[in-house]
Amino acid sequence: MKLELYYWPEIQGRGEFVRLALEDAGAPYVDVARQPKGMARMLALEERERVFAPPFLRAGKLVIAQTANILHHLGPKLGLAPASEARRAVLSQEQLTIADWVTEVHDAHHPIASSLYYEDQQREAERRAAIFRKERLPKFMAHFEARARPRSKVTYVDLSLFQMIEGLRYAFPKAMKKLERNYPLLLALHQRVARRPRLAAYLASERRIAFNQQGIFRYYPELDG
Amino acid sequence: MKLELYYWPEIQGRGEFVRLALEDAGAPYVDVARQPKGMARMLALEERERVFAPPFLRAGKLVIAQTANILHHLGPKLGLAPASEARRAVLSQEQLTIADWVTEVHDAHHPIASSLYYEDQQREAERRAAIFRKERLPKFMAHFEARARPRSKVTYVDLSLFQMIEGLRYAFPKAMKKLERNYPLLLALHQRVARRPRLAAYLASERRIAFNQQGIFRYYPELDG
Repeated sequence: MKLELYYWPEIQGRGEFVRLALEDAGAPYVDVARQPKGMARMLALEERERVFAPPFLRAGKLVIAQTANILHHLGPKLGLAPASEARRAVLSQEQLTIADWVTEVHDAHHPIASSLYYEDQQREAERRAAIFRKERLPKFMAHFEARARPRSKVTYVDLSLFQMIEGLRYAFPKAMKKLERNYPLLLALHQRVARRPRLAAYLASERRIAFNQQGIFRYYPELDG
Repeated sequence: MKLELYYWPEIQGRGEFVRLALEDAGAPYVDVARQPKGMARMLALEERERVFAPPFLRAGKLVIAQTANILHHLGPKLGLAPASEARRAVLSQEQLTIADWVTEVHDAHHPIASSLYYEDQQREAERRAAIFRKERLPKFMAHFEARARPRSKVTYVDLSLFQMIEGLRYAFPKAMKKLERNYPLLLALHQRVARRPRLAAYLASERRIAFNQQGIFRYYPELDG
């Protein structure tokens, strides 16, 4: 089945969690908004289908939004999730916890409003980021460290955890340098994912958008402590 | 099957979205943390199963967390969701958008950190809440108004939208009074849900915890404009 991913063309953002799954599985897909006239197609479909926000996926007649929901749907089809309802539910739970983590990463630099410039909420961001680094970052890392299963089959949640570590290293290099050694299973998982041949090829390709100051993960030295 | 819900016993919070579905369906369930020694049982199971945060549900051997994930699992079993994978995915997408909305409601009074008192982030809360009322509240309301289907079978998403309107009226009475008339289909849905016999009985019972200043929806006059 033809798969179309709709997401902002200039950032990794939430869409990247879906891109990683599609790329790792070698699934043929079109990253629509990165094609000629793709942005107009994305906005038209978003309007027609009354989607709240990208990313969304079109698979035949089905159009679905929300990153964790897209991955729940794609997981078994891409060989990145078990087939049983119960085991899929447990994976989805973990992806939703990652989604909460992503929102907290975003809100560390935009604690007041997405519609305001960073500079217009920098003081609040410094306050929120300090607590994020001290309380929330270790809490999330410890949670996933405790659940890591080094020898189990790789799932879409593992790919998303790889992306979290990549992004956190970009956004909080000093904090991560101090912290990450406490989570050896997560680091081993990160390496294991990075070495998967199709994923490695993707990461080295032009399809992988570089981290930048418009995405979820942004580097502001003053937020890194 | 015996269903056990685990959630904080003194607030509606995120657990209430699950309670409403269980109550509306007339499903026998135990609200564990509200039983004698229930808090200790909740904390022990949370630790043993390495759950990130309540609410979580135990159904036989399965223990799952994350509100939208619990509802996705329970929906068809409770007669509050269709059975087809595609239609379940579309419902789940909407529940996840409600989850994002809930986080924004919470962060309107706690924009810096959940671990700080409101009074220690009141200035930031006033700034965030003003933008929430002006930009985000109408955006979410308009989204669900546009998707409302007045004559379709009631789903768990409809029950959650009922709860959002109840909560928003408690937390932002002035803002809602001005705004809500713009969304007649949502108001009709709210009424339709409120009149469902089992739900009405629940809302009138002692099982329904009152809104208060510890939950997601809190009333601070200075945040209501």
